[in-house]
Amino acid sequence: MDSPSEEEWLACCGSAKFAQEMASAAPFSSLQRAVDAARDIWFNKVDVNGWLEAFAAHPAIGESPSKTVKSQTSAQWSKGEQSAALATATDATLQELYDWNARYRQKFGFVFLIFASGRSTPEILAEIKKRYHNRPIIEFELSAKEQMKITELRISKLFPANATVASTTKT
Amino acid sequence: MDSPSEEEWLACCGSAKFAQEMASAAPFSSLQRAVDAARDIWFNKVDVNGWLEAFAAHPAIGESPSKTVKSQTSAQWSKGEQSAALATATDATLQELYDWNARYRQKFGFVFLIFASGRSTPEILAEIKKRYHNRPIIEFELSAKEQMKITELRISKLFPANATVASTTKT
Repeated sequence: MDSPSEEEWLACCGSAKFAQEMASAAPFSSLQRAVDAARDIWFNKVDVNGWLEAFAAHPAIGESPSKTVKSQTSAQWSKGEQSAALATATDATLQELYDWNARYRQKFGFVFLIFASGRSTPEILAEIKKRYHNRPIIEFELSAKEQMKITELRISKLFPANATVASTTKT
Repeated sequence: MDSPSEEEWLACCGSAKFAQEMASAAPFSSLQRAVDAARDIWFNKVDVNGWLEAFAAHPAIGESPSKTVKSQTSAQWSKGEQSAALATATDATLQELYDWNARYRQKFGFVFLIFASGRSTPEILAEIKKRYHNRPIIEFELSAKEQMKITELRISKLFPANATVASTTKT
């Protein structure tokens, strides 16, 4: 397997620094090593501006990625990750989610971020209402952890089952 | 005493949201009540973008406030707060501080912030070298706490000794 491009790393996590550092650290001999590197880079090397940059690459949950979104791959993955939420949404719950997204952004200054895979709209609504009461710094760190879960899922999509063998033979 | 203006609150802490909220919450019947309100606003209501905005209002320690600084009052207070540091600086330690300021900003994306009143340049150098090893999120929260100490000192300058009596008679 070829090493993922910087653009592909950026689709996993929209911080330019994250993508650059992952591209420099590649190739990885296994998915686990890539995830370990990603965690180290995200939590120890990417600064708070980079965290905000990565959050800004996400559409609000329940909403379509904007047409100006930087990464088409990221936009497609967002859709997939939100499929359970959309399947369980009604017009009323979707409207409620829009309203809470707006309130959340007003308080915290960034988009509500949640690892959405497999979560229903009522579950997500319960989470946003609970998290809305957090202090901004608590919510900032919590969002970074949710971002890391999303990043890990996305990195796994870059590594087909035979990645270990393929990348070992390559290096 | 007249309530401090929004501009004066902004000189205490360079977040626009902080200054607006303090101006709305005023008048305060005592310095302690003003400080309590400031702590609540800073830690619970100002978002992480506001924290970065406030940090950006400070000159790098050991350096003169830039001429483009927004608040002249804040620039003057910075000078006073750094007087012990400057009195104990040599050309060599000042150069070292400049270099560490640059390294710090490179890693964290914001200025090195420290409650400098009464601290010598060697003490400040020891702190920046120690704090440089922190994770970005840890350093971000620590800087917000240093900012609060600076804010408290500055608020006390807005409250003359007779503030309690004066503002009670006013409201």
